[in-house]
Parts: sequence; C-alpha cells; structure tokens
Amino acid sequence: MIKKLIAVLAIMAFVQGTMSYAKSNDVAVLKNKKEKQLMTVLNKVDSPEDVKKLSKKEMEALAQDIRNGILKRVNTIGGHLGPDLGIVEATIAMHYVFDSPKDKIVFDVSHQVYPHKMLTGRKAGFFDPEMYSKITGYSNPAESPHDHFVIGHTSTSVSLATGLAKARDVKNEKYNVIALIGDGSLSGGEAYEGFNNAAVLGTNMIIIVNDNEMSIAPNQGGLYKNLAELRETKGKAQNNVFKALGFDYYYVEEGNDIETLIKAFEKVKDTTHPTVVHIHTLKGKGYEPAVEDKETYHWQLPGFMDKKDNGANVETYNSVTTDYLLKMKSQKEPVVAITAATPGVFGFTPDFREKMGSNYTDVGIAEEHAIAYASGLATNGAKPVLALMSSFVQRTYDQMSQDLALNNSPATILIYWGGISNADMTHLCTFDIPLISNIPNIVYLSPTNKEEYLAMLDWSLTQKDHPVFIRVPAGELVSTGKKDTTDYSKLNKYEVVEKGQKVAIIAAGNFFKLGSQVKEELKKQTGIDATLINPKFLTGVDEELLNSLKKDHTLVITLEDGVVDGGLGEKISRFYGNSEMKVLNFGAKKEFTDRVPLNELYNRYHLTKELIVEDIQKTLK
Amino acid sequence: MIKKLIAVLAIMAFVQGTMSYAKSNDVAVLKNKKEKQLMTVLNKVDSPEDVKKLSKKEMEALAQDIRNGILKRVNTIGGHLGPDLGIVEATIAMHYVFDSPKDKIVFDVSHQVYPHKMLTGRKAGFFDPEMYSKITGYSNPAESPHDHFVIGHTSTSVSLATGLAKARDVKNEKYNVIALIGDGSLSGGEAYEGFNNAAVLGTNMIIIVNDNEMSIAPNQGGLYKNLAELRETKGKAQNNVFKALGFDYYYVEEGNDIETLIKAFEKVKDTTHPTVVHIHTLKGKGYEPAVEDKETYHWQLPGFMDKKDNGANVETYNSVTTDYLLKMKSQKEPVVAITAATPGVFGFTPDFREKMGSNYTDVGIAEEHAIAYASGLATNGAKPVLALMSSFVQRTYDQMSQDLALNNSPATILIYWGGISNADMTHLCTFDIPLISNIPNIVYLSPTNKEEYLAMLDWSLTQKDHPVFIRVPAGELVSTGKKDTTDYSKLNKYEVVEKGQKVAIIAAGNFFKLGSQVKEELKKQTGIDATLINPKFLTGVDEELLNSLKKDHTLVITLEDGVVDGGLGEKISRFYGNSEMKVLNFGAKKEFTDRVPLNELYNRYHLTKELIVEDIQKTLK
Repeated sequence: MIKKLIAVLAIMAFVQGTMSYAKSNDVAVLKNKKEKQLMTVLNKVDSPEDVKKLSKKEMEALAQDIRNGILKRVNTIGGHLGPDLGIVEATIAMHYVFDSPKDKIVFDVSHQVYPHKMLTGRKAGFFDPEMYSKITGYSNPAESPHDHFVIGHTSTSVSLATGLAKARDVKNEKYNVIALIGDGSLSGGEAYEGFNNAAVLGTNMIIIVNDNEMSIAPNQGGLYKNLAELRETKGKAQNNVFKALGFDYYYVEEGNDIETLIKAFEKVKDTTHPTVVHIHTLKGKGYEPAVEDKETYHWQLPGFMDKKDNGANVETYNSVTTDYLLKMKSQKEPVVAITAATPGVFGFTPDFREKMGSNYTDVGIAEEHAIAYASGLATNGAKPVLALMSSFVQRTYDQMSQDLALNNSPATILIYWGGISNADMTHLCTFDIPLISNIPNIVYLSPTNKEEYLAMLDWSLTQKDHPVFIRVPAGELVSTGKKDTTDYSKLNKYEVVEKGQKVAIIAAGNFFKLGSQVKEELKKQTGIDATLINPKFLTGVDEELLNSLKKDHTLVITLEDGVVDGGLGEKISRFYGNSEMKVLNFGAKKEFTDRVPLNELYNRYHLTKELIVEDIQKTLK
Repeated sequence: MIKKLIAVLAIMAFVQGTMSYAKSNDVAVLKNKKEKQLMTVLNKVDSPEDVKKLSKKEMEALAQDIRNGILKRVNTIGGHLGPDLGIVEATIAMHYVFDSPKDKIVFDVSHQVYPHKMLTGRKAGFFDPEMYSKITGYSNPAESPHDHFVIGHTSTSVSLATGLAKARDVKNEKYNVIALIGDGSLSGGEAYEGFNNAAVLGTNMIIIVNDNEMSIAPNQGGLYKNLAELRETKGKAQNNVFKALGFDYYYVEEGNDIETLIKAFEKVKDTTHPTVVHIHTLKGKGYEPAVEDKETYHWQLPGFMDKKDNGANVETYNSVTTDYLLKMKSQKEPVVAITAATPGVFGFTPDFREKMGSNYTDVGIAEEHAIAYASGLATNGAKPVLALMSSFVQRTYDQMSQDLALNNSPATILIYWGGISNADMTHLCTFDIPLISNIPNIVYLSPTNKEEYLAMLDWSLTQKDHPVFIRVPAGELVSTGKKDTTDYSKLNKYEVVEKGQKVAIIAAGNFFKLGSQVKEELKKQTGIDATLINPKFLTGVDEELLNSLKKDHTLVITLEDGVVDGGLGEKISRFYGNSEMKVLNFGAKKEFTDRVPLNELYNRYHLTKELIVEDIQKTLK
C-alpha cells in the first residue's frame, strides 16, 4: 500500500514535469533544461549505430528517456501507451544486437513501435510538439528506412516478414529478418497462416513473441492457456505451440531486462532456421496506472494524466446498445454479444461483460471466426449481436459471404465508426459500404437516430430471414423522442421525410443531417423546395419511389458517409441510367487519406452544404 | 507390380459395370440387378437410425456400397473423389455412434460429405442419374435436416460448430456438436481462429481431424510436420499442436476401420469439454488410381474412369502463364510463383513446380498469408506472381487493402475463372470486380486476348508503383498474333477499338467478344455504327475518353462478366450522372445462383446480343 502510494506520488511528480513541459512554448528539441531531464542519453542517439556504443548503465537511462517520450507524446496527442511502455528494453536490445536496416524488423500492428521510432532518428516526434503530426503512430517506410511497411491492422508481421525473407533468399542475400508480434496478435488467423509458412522457410527467420499477458482486453482462447503454461514453466512446458509448429524456441522470462535480452538475441542472430524467441514483458511498465489497469491504458486520449470527466452519464449509441443487450438478456432472450478483442470501443466495459456473463464472447482478434461463430449461433436459434469497427470488418469478407449470407443466417452485426474521418491511413472507416452491401442476401441498414436504431435492432433480432448489418451512427446521439414503427421486413423501402420537387436528396445515415442542411440552403439560395429522403437501406434501391420521382424531379443527389465507388449512390445512378433524371453522387473519393483534417476532406469531396448546392446549381443549368 | 496390375484389372472390371449401368436407361433406384450389386446394404439404409442396426459385416458391405455410389456419381457428373473415398468408414462410425440430427455434425468444405449424404436419405443422388442434379456436391440444409450449413469454402467448420455449441449452451440444451475437418483445411486462418475459441468453450465440442496426409495438393507448413510426427508416434509425440491449444486428444491410426472408429467415437461421445479425435485415413481408399495419385484424383471430371485426352498440347491461358513464369526464371528474374493450395487450377503441375524450384511457393489454404507474403516479396525486390481463383480471392480483403494496397507493393496477382458461370452457389466467381476494384491504389486489368495479357504481365513485373491484379480471361485462348505495345503505366486509359457514333459499347475482358457481337447485331438491326471500347482497366474511368463521347454519342452501354453492383459499369453511370448521356450497365444481378445453366443466366441478365440490342433500342426511343 505504502509502496503504491510512493509510486503514485512519483508518477504525479513526473507527470507535473512532463505536463509543464508540454505546456511550455519551447518546441525545439533539446533546447532547455527540462528537455535534458527528459533525455539524458537519447539525445546522443540518432540511429541504431549509436545504441551499440552505449554501456549497460546508459542503456538503462535510455530506457527511461524513451518512456518519457512515450508518456509525453501520448499525453499530448493520444496514442498507444501500455504496449510501448512494455517493449522499451526489447527494442533497445534488438537494435543493439541486430543491424537495422540491413537486418529487417517488422513490428506487428505497430502498437509497440514508438521506442523503435525514437531509436531510428525520429525522437523529435515524441519530444517536439511541432513534430508530433509529422511522425505517425504507426510503422511507416516514408519516415525511415528502418520501417518496411505501413502497418496498423493486427497479425500481419509474420506473413510480411516471411515475404521479406523469401525475397532475400531468392536474391541470395544474407541478413536477419525479424518479426515482433504481441501475444494478442497471435489470435488472428493471418498470424497463424504466417507461422505455419514461416516454419518451413528453411532459412533465417526470427519471430519475437512479446508476451505481456494481454491483448487490448484480456486474451481469449486456447493458445493463451499454453502461453501461460510456458510462462509458468519458464518455457519448459511439454505443450508448446511454437515447437509443435516446428520452430526452434527460446524463452526469456526477464523481458524487461536489457542484458538478458541482448544475450538471447545474440544467441539467435544469424540463425539458419525459423526461430521463436518468447519474451515475457510487463505491459505498461514504468507507469503504474498502466500496469494496474492494462486494458484502459492500452491506448489513451490526450490529457490522460490529468483527472478528467469520463462523461459516463451522457446517453450515447454505445450506452443505448449495451442497455438494449442487457434488457434482452434480462428478458431471457438467447442473446450473445460478441466482440473481436475491442470491447472498449463499443462500451462493453468490464461491468457490462460481467452482467452479460455467458451471454458475452470475446473471440480475440479473430473477425473471421466471429462472423462464422455468429452464423452458427443464429442457425441454432440464439441471437448473436456482433460488434465490429468499420476498419476491422475488412478482416472478414469470405465469412460474410459464405458462412453468413449464403446461409441467410439471421445474425445481427453492428458496424461502428463507419464514415469519413481524420484517422490514420491504416484505420480509415470509409470502405464498409461497398465491402458489405454488394454481397447478396445481406441487409445493411443505416439508422439516423436512436429510435430508428432501436427499431432496426428489434426487427433484426426478431426476424429469421436475413443477416442484418446496422451501421451504428457516428457522433452524438440524435433522438426524435418518437418511436419508429417502420416495418423493416419490407426491404429497400426508403422514407420520404419531406416531399418537395425538382431536386431529391437521398441522404444516408450520418449524412442525413447534411441532407437536411442542403435542403435548407438550396431553398435559401434558389427557392427550390427539395424532397428529402432517408434511404435506411444501403443494400438496394427503392425502385417504386425512384420511379415516382421522375414525375416532378430532374435531379437526384445522394449523400453517403464513405467511399462513393461501389456504394449506394452508384446503384441509384445506375437505376436512372436509361432515364432523363440527372444524378450526383456525393461521398469520399477512392483513396487512402492519412490524418487529413475532416474539414479539409469535406471540402475536397464537396461535402458541405454550400459546395453541394453549388454543384446542384451547375447541374440544373 | 503384379499386385498393381491385378488392382488395375479389378478396377477396370468395376468400371465396366458402373459405366454400363450409367449408360443404361433405367434411372430409378434399386430396380435392376446391376443396381442391387452396387447396393447390397445401402438399399436398406434411409437414415442414420438404420446404420445403428447393422452388424459389423453389414457395415463393411455398406462401405463398399458407398464407394460404388461415389465412383458412379463422380464418373458421371464429376466431383470430389479422393476425400470422399477416404472418409467412408468414419462417416459410418459417426452415424453409428452419434444421433444426428440431434447431435450436429458440420463437414468442413464439404469435400468429404458424399458418404454422409448417402446415409441421410440422399443415396438417390449417387445412384439415380435423374437425381444427380437435385443433390448438390456440398453440405446443404435445404436437402436434409442432417446438414446445418451450405458449405463450400475451406476452414469454416470449427467456427460454425462453435456457434452451434454456444447456442446450445445458452439455451441449456444437451447434445454433441461435431466438426469434421481435413488436415488440408487446417492451414486456413479461420480454422485456427476456430480452434483457439473452441478450446475455451468449456463444454461439449468434438473436432474430428481427418488426416489423409494431403490437402488438394501436398500439404505445406510447419503444422504438417507435427501431424506427421503424431502419426509416426501413434499420437504420442511430445509436440502436439492440439494439446498445446488445450484440447483433449485421441489418436486413431486405423482411420478406415469401422470398429476402431466406433470405439474411439464412443469414448468421446457426450464429453464435457473440447476434444480432438485425430484419425489417420487413406485418401482415395478403394480406388487404386486415387490412392496412387492423390492430387489428380482429389476431384475429377466426368468420365475419369475412361481413357481421355488431356489436351496438353493446346495453348491455353494456363500454359501461357506457366511458360511466362518459367521464362522469367530462366532469365534469372527473382520471380516467385505462389499458389494457395490449388496449383492444379492454374496448370502449376508437378513438372512446373519442379522446374520453378525455390521460385515456387504453395502456402496452403492461406490466401491472407499469400497476399501479405507477396507484399513482403515485392517490397524486398522480388517479383511475386500469386494465382488465385475468383471465388477464393474473397478469402482475403484486409490483406489486399492493408498489406498490399496501402503499401503500394508491386506484386502481381492473377485472378482466374472470374465470370458468370453455372457453378455451385459456394463457388461463384462473380464478385471479384467489386471486391478488388474499390480498394485504392490497386490496378485491376482485364485483358481480352493472349497478347494483351502478356503485355500486362510484362508491365506488371517491371513497374514498381502499384499492386497489379490481372483477371486472366476465361475460356479458350484468343490470339491476335500482334504484339500489344500499350503503355499500361498510363492508368485508366481505355482503348477505342472501333470508332463509331451514337452508341458506345464498353466491353470488358471476357465480354469483349460479346461487345463485338452487339456492335454487329446493332448495325444489322438499326444501321447504327457503334463505337467499341476495350476498357482494359477495371479500377477507374477514362474521363477524357468518356467526355469526348458526349460529342457524338447519346448512349453508353457497359458489359462486365460479373455482378453489376459495385462494378465498373456503375462507375461509368456515376460519371455521366450530370450529363445528357444515357447509360445501361450489363452484368450479373447481385444474387447467389446455384448450378443454373449459363444460357439461363445470360437470358436472365440480358447478356445476349439480341437482348442487349433490344434494350438499346428501347432506350434510344
């Protein structure tokens, strides 16, 4: 207890220092005393070459410097905290032993890439606020030759590294290829496929398994019992999944001890066959709250070191969803809430999980399994509700098509965060509409407010005919206060919210509000009283309604919060192709954007009421 | 040698019998003597209940009957041979021990589902030619309550069964849930994700691993060394991937011995925790050629028992591709040909594989890994050429987006069999255009002849800027005899093949020929001399050309051999949305079709020159 108190006080002191620094106006690197306190050795390190010159003591100081950098950056702009804090020593040891960039290190999912960035010429991205936006939170070859791929999704490192190694072999080159993968990432199928193939490469390939006993949330699955057994026996357990797959295997209990790690890595350097080094690290090491609550501190928003209001009492689409699921359970419905390792995103808090009990499953980072599992549940009379982020539903397609749609399994899949955003290029949420809506049999719904969302949920959990996807609205909750009594079994029936003429605005989901603004602006500028339509369905067109519009409309515009290519708007353009009706489709361009401010994107894509009205006027001329 | 000869003679005799039967006009079941010879016990079996009443000797006769049915059906309409022949005894034993459909058995990929079909009321589908088309080659709930899912893609059974089991638990029901999965299917990531989650279900779940030492082609990967070790030690090897994942484990060496299997299954029936029964079977058992050459006889075309011409000397897109790859290798290019377990589909014969040597990789049924691996290879300066069937490229999306496209890795991916077909609903090849072409950075090309295809290959393997997908033409090879000198680095540049006016026909890939026919028919019927365009690119529109068409054209029609939703045509409809140009998009409807004859589909989708010209005339009116 006293120890804890001391730790907390120490952290508070540290935080004070960091925060006062963060608030200072001095943005250059290494200019004042405070900075020098934060970087005692790191200031001398500009590349891995410099790491190799350090004494043991200096490397330990370097570890502290790196932790300062992690905390400083994350507290200012947010980012991955726990995994980076845990991998500091291993990163120093890797760069001490291996010769990057000749030796090639691939960091899975990039959740633990900050220390590597600091040691490869990018420390300013952690200490100089002006540089924060120039150095991304993810592995990125555009920043440094020490990075080999842009990486932001999980479980890819071993496969990518196997490709690097095979290219090396085909070209008769010699160096080490290393994949660093966290225990959480091991639950993804691509990781396993990579391991299975790396095992038979027959040449140098080193996989460092960073086992911090956690995924984003606690790990799930049989593999993790094996990892626990291996930790308990210091790698000596008879059951060993890595040996079973054919790897040489080394266990390092002291995964936060630089000297031990250096010895282990030196042992495997230049190995001539596929080798796993299983290191046991402490997630969050060096920042006690992150050690105490590993899930919360996996990733943090800016200002996490300050006390903050968590806004728990505001009703959100998350709280509406969890309340709904708990209500279903209390009504003895065979509901099963499912997540693929990101419960926090949906408000599936530890408290919610406890209340759901066996009606809750976290399948790990295994979206493919999640979809098939949901199909199995639905087929056998349960009511699965699987929550996925738009960016991660991409990790499953064939399962949506074969396991779910082909079987018409009445599962409910909630897609979160779908829409244009200022996200990193690895985490865009703009592609789910073309991805999902062009698969037969699936019904993809886009509610625009709470009541619609609840009505869609009710229908989805009651019906037995279709897999139903619901694009949970992004942003603040909108409530009409009026129960939605739509019969959603009448597929592709759009709602005419306001009947007008000449111009019809079909505005889906998140962009319904924009549609409403466009209507108003158009009226203001031109006097045209446009028709406003909420399509509700993303998977098809309301032919009857669209035909009826031909009578008194000359232009239909579509608004969807996602990439236009392959989306809803194009289906409407196609429908009107043989008619006089003009159509304008608004949405995102087919491109990967990287942390571009939302307003800039909205301007680029003509997604403001002013630009849309301008385009309408041009077309009507 | 003599033994072999005897076996061949015996088979020939058997074939004679079967073939003469197959050629007879008597289509009813069990009506004549010949049939009675084929079914000595099976005729008394209409459901699993009947299996339970049989003596050991009768069950052995039943096994022979089932093999007769497999051979008879496959020799008449084609289908899966080796895997079905190998699983006969295990299927009898399963139905003897378990109580299907209360106990639920899920058959992975359905390659071994024929015996199960024969024991569950569907034997006519194997002995009565009139019934062949009514009983599919795949698991199908529409046929029988003993099937729980439509299944045709690999590695899904454990995940689906885990869903069934969890639904059972949530509803407090009691019965066995069994997944039967072949060793080949274990290479897919979804299988691993399923195992990892099934392991922690905490209740009854039985996974029967049917180890016949083969995937479609020989198995690849570290896992298979472990399976070999387990077989060699009769399940006693220290390294055991199933135990490592947390399963109870039983090994059955005599996987084609009914009594032994019955004992093993009785031991695990009603188990209260996840259990693996690893059975060692002989792929192709009972038909010697299928035992001798397991890869060739995995699946067979009708008439395989007759001597047939393999057409090896005809030039095809397969032979053009393998010749090209061998030429690249002989020129010391760092080319790496990759398949995900289906080398035969692309003409990657054992001979080709041997010649390619270490420049060839079979990654197993692991399309996700295959894409990431190709990205790694390309990033590190090799020239990967990955061949995938359209139906199976669906098994990877996130990897195409994140591992490949986001990194702009210059890998070459060949998509085979893309197009509308009379395939089973599990093996449709109509969805690859929307799947692939809406991902940024990817260039998806659709050659219409050999010379174009080779020019595209050349460009793809030389350039360093894009991931390039090429939709290998389906059907007979078309050769212009004239080298294609197009500069494909000018993206989205369509080719005007014949300049006309009023109507422009944009006809992609396989449908270029149809476009040409439409042009001719239109001329004949209306005198209109249409413009014929080969778009070459599926990933974007040629804005300059499309704009220029506005001058002297009033209608553009698009033809693509795939689903229209999300495809190329809709992009063109969108482009013309703000103009007077009319557009008609032709292609498949968004639907799952099941073995519907091609002509019927072409009529349904208006994909004949007559119907298209009719639609054109309607629109021009």
